Amino acid sequence: MPTHLVAALDIGGTKIAGALVDGDGRIRRRAQRPTPAREDGETVMRAVAEVIGELVGDGSWGEVRAVGIGSAGPVDASAGTVSPVNVPHWRGFPLVERVRELTGGLPVELVGDGVAMTAAEHWQGAARGHENALCMVVSTGVGGGLVLGGSLHPGPTGNAGHIGHISVDLDGDPCPCGARGCVERIASGPNIARRALDEGWRPGPDGDASAAAVARAARAGDPVATASFERAAQALAAGIAATATLVEIDIAVIGGGVAKAGDTLFAPLRRALRDYAALSFVRNLTVAPALMGTDAGLVGAAAAALRAFPGTPAERLRPAVNS
Amino acid sequence: MPTHLVAALDIGGTKIAGALVDGDGRIRRRAQRPTPAREDGETVMRAVAEVIGELVGDGSWGEVRAVGIGSAGPVDASAGTVSPVNVPHWRGFPLVERVRELTGGLPVELVGDGVAMTAAEHWQGAARGHENALCMVVSTGVGGGLVLGGSLHPGPTGNAGHIGHISVDLDGDPCPCGARGCVERIASGPNIARRALDEGWRPGPDGDASAAAVARAARAGDPVATASFERAAQALAAGIAATATLVEIDIAVIGGGVAKAGDTLFAPLRRALRDYAALSFVRNLTVAPALMGTDAGLVGAAAAALRAFPGTPAERLRPAVNS
Repeated sequence: MPTHLVAALDIGGTKIAGALVDGDGRIRRRAQRPTPAREDGETVMRAVAEVIGELVGDGSWGEVRAVGIGSAGPVDASAGTVSPVNVPHWRGFPLVERVRELTGGLPVELVGDGVAMTAAEHWQGAARGHENALCMVVSTGVGGGLVLGGSLHPGPTGNAGHIGHISVDLDGDPCPCGARGCVERIASGPNIARRALDEGWRPGPDGDASAAAVARAARAGDPVATASFERAAQALAAGIAATATLVEIDIAVIGGGVAKAGDTLFAPLRRALRDYAALSFVRNLTVAPALMGTDAGLVGAAAAALRAFPGTPAERLRPAVNS
Repeated sequence: MPTHLVAALDIGGTKIAGALVDGDGRIRRRAQRPTPAREDGETVMRAVAEVIGELVGDGSWGEVRAVGIGSAGPVDASAGTVSPVNVPHWRGFPLVERVRELTGGLPVELVGDGVAMTAAEHWQGAARGHENALCMVVSTGVGGGLVLGGSLHPGPTGNAGHIGHISVDLDGDPCPCGARGCVERIASGPNIARRALDEGWRPGPDGDASAAAVARAARAGDPVATASFERAAQALAAGIAATATLVEIDIAVIGGGVAKAGDTLFAPLRRALRDYAALSFVRNLTVAPALMGTDAGLVGAAAAALRAFPGTPAERLRPAVNS
C-alpha cells in the first residue's frame, strides 16, 4: 500500500532545502539551493522553484498530498506571506500562493522556523510524548515554538513561541527588534561572544571569537567566558520560566549551535531555572537538549503539513519510527 | 423548557461566594460567607459547606449538573487541590473531592481565579469575540488567564496565564514568590504605593496611602505619583508583550483596583506597549479595561464548568445574553 507523502520546504537565509517526507517522518528525496538572499525577490523565488521542480520530478510525486513550509520569520500564516529578516527583498512575499501554483494547487501550510523545529522535536525528538513543551533554537538568533495540550500551537500567524524577543530586562540593552533586554539580545551566540570580548576575554591563536570558542574557554576554566555563558543561561531561564508560568509547559528543549556547549550552558541554566521558576506548578519543569539534527526544519515542516491536512483518519500522523 | 444550571464557587482570602448560574450567565441565586482565613482548614471548609448548603436548598438545585470553582492560587486542577497564599491552613487541600461529596457527586471543575476572571471576560466581557486574549487582574496581586484559539486555556493545573509572576527584570527586586523582578513586584497596587512613598510622595490629610490615592495625586499632576504609575505600566507592557510574542494574543483586558486609575494607567501602558511589542505579528495588540464587575469570579467559574462539561450539544455554552 503506498504511503502518502508530503513535500517540505525549509527556507533560511543561507539555504533553501526541500524534501519528500513520508508519514513516518522519513525523508525520501532531497533537493537544495543556496539562498540568493541579497538578490531581488523573483531571483529568490526562482531558487525555491528549482527545489520544487526537483521534487515534482520524483517518481512518487503523485502520492504527495500537501506541502509544509517552515520559513525564517517573521511569517504571516494568515496572509500566506513571509518577510525573513535575512532576505531583505522578500517583504510580505506571497510564498504560499506561489508554492501552491508550482505544486498543482496542493494545500500549503506555512509556519515559522521555530514552530517547524518544535513540530519535529515533538514528533520524533526530545519533546516526544510531552503534552506541553517549549522547543528553542539558540544560535545566531533565538527562536522557538510551543506544543500545548498535545498539539503544535503555531498561533494565528504561525509565529507563536517567539521566545527570543520577549524582554527579560525591561531597562536592558536595545534589541534590533525595537524592544529592550530581549532573551536573544543576551543569550544568542553573537551576544555571548560580544559580552566575553567586552569583559576582556581574548580568542586563542586561531582567532576564533565565536560563542563556540567562548564555550571552550569556559570549559578550560576562563572566568570571563564562564560568566558570559552564565548570563546567557540566566536570560534563557527567565524566558523559559516566563513561558512555563504563562502556558504551563513541562519541558524546554534547546537546540542550535549554542546548545552544543553542553553543560557549559545547561548546568547554569538548570541552576537559574530554580530561581525563576518558583511557583509550585512550574517547579518540575525539565530542560533537555534537542535530538533532531539539521533535518529538523524539513521534518517539522512535514509534520506541520500532516497536522494541518490530516487526510483520512487512517492517514493521520503516526507515531515516530523509533517507537 | 428548564434551563440547565451550574453551581459556581469563588474562593478568595476575604470571602467565599457561591451562586447558581444559568446557561446565559445570569446569576439565579447567591450565597456568601466571610473566609475564616486564619482558622484551621476544616473551619474554612465549613464556610464553603454553608455556602453550598444554601445553594442545595434552592428549589432549582435539581437542574444543576456541574460545579465550577475559581480559587485564589496556586491551585492544582490535576490533583483537585488548592493552596491559596492567603489561606495558610489550606495547603494541598482536596477541595474538589470535598465539594463533590457535598453536591451529591456532581462533576467539579477547578481553575485559578485569574482563569475564572478570563472565562467571564471572554463569555460576556471585554474579550468577547476574541480568539486569543490575555485577561488580567491588577490589584493587591497581579493575576491572569488566557484564551487561545477561541477557548479558555487553563493549562493542566488550572494556573496558566499567571502573568504576575513572570520576570521582566531579571536582576530586579526579590519577589515573595522566590524569583526577581516579577510583573507583580513592580505593578501591583501595594508596589505602586510603596514606590511613590520611597520616592518622596506623601499622602494627603486623609492619610490614604493606597495606589488609588497615588492615582489621584498623579491626576493632579504630582510627578512622583505619575512616575510610579509609569513604571507599573512599563512592567505590565513588558509582560503583556511577552505573552503576545509567545502565544499571539490580540487583546489584553485589564481589571482590578489598579485598572480603575483609568488613563493614569492605560495611557502610559499603551505607550510602553509600542516599545515592547515590536514584532510585526504583535504590533496590532490592543488593551482594554475589563467589563465584568465583582461577579466575574462567579460567572467565570460557571463558564469554566460549562466548558468542561458541555452536556448534550444543545446545552453547550450559548452566546451571552447581550448578543
